[in-house]
Amino acid sequence: MLALGIDPGTAICGYGVVETQGSRLNPVIYGVIETTPDMEPAMRLKKIHQELNRLIKEYQPDIMGVEQLFMNKNVRTVMAVGQARGVVLLAAAQNELAIAEFTPLQVKQAVTGYGKATKEQVIYMTQRLLNLRTKPHPDDAADALAVAIATIHCESINRMRITNDRLC
Amino acid sequence: MLALGIDPGTAICGYGVVETQGSRLNPVIYGVIETTPDMEPAMRLKKIHQELNRLIKEYQPDIMGVEQLFMNKNVRTVMAVGQARGVVLLAAAQNELAIAEFTPLQVKQAVTGYGKATKEQVIYMTQRLLNLRTKPHPDDAADALAVAIATIHCESINRMRITNDRLC
Repeated sequence: MLALGIDPGTAICGYGVVETQGSRLNPVIYGVIETTPDMEPAMRLKKIHQELNRLIKEYQPDIMGVEQLFMNKNVRTVMAVGQARGVVLLAAAQNELAIAEFTPLQVKQAVTGYGKATKEQVIYMTQRLLNLRTKPHPDDAADALAVAIATIHCESINRMRITNDRLC
Repeated sequence: MLALGIDPGTAICGYGVVETQGSRLNPVIYGVIETTPDMEPAMRLKKIHQELNRLIKEYQPDIMGVEQLFMNKNVRTVMAVGQARGVVLLAAAQNELAIAEFTPLQVKQAVTGYGKATKEQVIYMTQRLLNLRTKPHPDDAADALAVAIATIHCESINRMRITNDRLC
């Protein structure tokens, strides 16, 4: 299975592609799509949509995982992340890609086994699970890889379940 | 000038196209793009993007006006509106359409001359200014027409100004 994890944002949108090889997890590519504040808001969204579309077409993932709603109280930030999430979800739908959404707690749980893990613990375990020589960098790319791991973890559990109830 | 006003939302996204004929304002078309909660979030965004894209290609507006950030405290609502706004702004950028953003206060000011006007006053004045026989309906379409009027109002003022400083 090939999973694309996304940490959506307007200034920095992290992405990470992870594949399964038996029980192993291999990093395929990870990085960030960056836009600058001097660009028009709509042009920033267009760039994110274009780059993501290109990534999906190039790597042909089976599923996209995206971080869900976070409890930031700043309305302006939530709106900006919402706009970026909108074009991310759109790119998935346009490419007929299945989508899984995760809360930060679910991602931490999947990667470290502990829902209240620190950012550092999540990055450390992401590096270990993907057998990376160095810490994945920047944080947004590391977060996206963690989301991709959570997506694979969740899909594997769902496939093993006898009932049709999906766990996540 | 032909202005497309948008009142973004995931369940109901209002649109309204208004043209200027001398000092007169004529309604060209208005309505709503609706999606239902049984649809996947990404498919709802895809439908909004598709329909809006079709509207832009059919009516070829000169400018798109969109309501800006509102101060709703419900993070879930802000996120949903943000996602819809994201695909609306993307459609404009993909069609190389100029974008003007307005706060609810600016829209009320432009339509009624009073920033604290009630919803009913805005709808009443929108009906009067566009010479509509009946109240524009539903409210989201009326809001979108009010945004289109604000867009035209603002563009006219900007064109009259001697300096290059844009008023809005």
